Amino acid sequence: MWRVLSTRGFEGLTLRAVAAELGASTGLLTHYFPNKKALLSHALEELDRRSATRPRRAAPADGSPPPPAGLARLRAALLDVLPLDGAAVAGNRIWVGSWDVALADPDLALAHAGRYGRSREALTAHVVEAQRLGELPADADPADLAAGAQAFALGLVVQALFAPGEFPAERQVALLDGHLATLAR
Amino acid sequence: MWRVLSTRGFEGLTLRAVAAELGASTGLLTHYFPNKKALLSHALEELDRRSATRPRRAAPADGSPPPPAGLARLRAALLDVLPLDGAAVAGNRIWVGSWDVALADPDLALAHAGRYGRSREALTAHVVEAQRLGELPADADPADLAAGAQAFALGLVVQALFAPGEFPAERQVALLDGHLATLAR
Repeated sequence: MWRVLSTRGFEGLTLRAVAAELGASTGLLTHYFPNKKALLSHALEELDRRSATRPRRAAPADGSPPPPAGLARLRAALLDVLPLDGAAVAGNRIWVGSWDVALADPDLALAHAGRYGRSREALTAHVVEAQRLGELPADADPADLAAGAQAFALGLVVQALFAPGEFPAERQVALLDGHLATLAR
Repeated sequence: MWRVLSTRGFEGLTLRAVAAELGASTGLLTHYFPNKKALLSHALEELDRRSATRPRRAAPADGSPPPPAGLARLRAALLDVLPLDGAAVAGNRIWVGSWDVALADPDLALAHAGRYGRSREALTAHVVEAQRLGELPADADPADLAAGAQAFALGLVVQALFAPGEFPAERQVALLDGHLATLAR
């Protein structure tokens, strides 16, 4: 399923394609997924689980120390979003692809909105800490600054997926650092 | 087709759904679109045509004067991207939805990459003009600044589509103006 999604997208996620990838019959697969909606829901849950457990710079799962609080933590959380290596490209390709089906289904849209909302809350906490440390201007609205930084990262993901040659990892990082530098001025 | 896309997305764009919306038979439709790929290609071309001809702040089609050159023109071009009213929400919902199918097809991906590349070139020209007018710092790289501004706008589109309550038109405009203000500092 993962391989089907990262190459053919949600549009190409059919019971037949997944069965072919597994070398199984479509009939066997319908035992687990009676219809496409069931397959889609499963794919989005699996996407959630993979995203939650993948290695993160901002909050290492292996117990290693995260970057120091404030701006460095904000930067690490935003770097976690960008397609900086092959695995992150594949994951992002699937996330971006999920927006089409999620926007068409109220339940899935709500789940996605909640996900991005929680991410903005985490970024806002990093901003508040950076303000406390004097790394970001104290007069800026933390929620606005976090929403802007999230927008910047999400839009950069889309650009980098379509034009990887124009947006290699180094340029993505440089653009993000440029954004953070203008905020810190 | 437009109505199917804006509510069910590309995933829901089937010959059957379009035929039902038109009150026509699927058989009649297959006369024009022999398969789903043909229907998709047509939808993306139509999307291009609509985007090219819709009213724009940065380059009014009715011959009325565009905003003055430089920062004001950059701002207008970015406002043109945002889902600030119902029509722009519907159009953006379809654009964002198209990313899934476009990423899965090399031809469509190339067409999208070219489209965003041309948009970045136009934004870069506005940045250069704003720098000439002393509205933006002369030492900033115009292409980087344009890519950052486009990223900001695209990411804001995604956030606003999923959380319209958190991102009403006024807040989208305020966030964009905040981004431009930090660049101008």
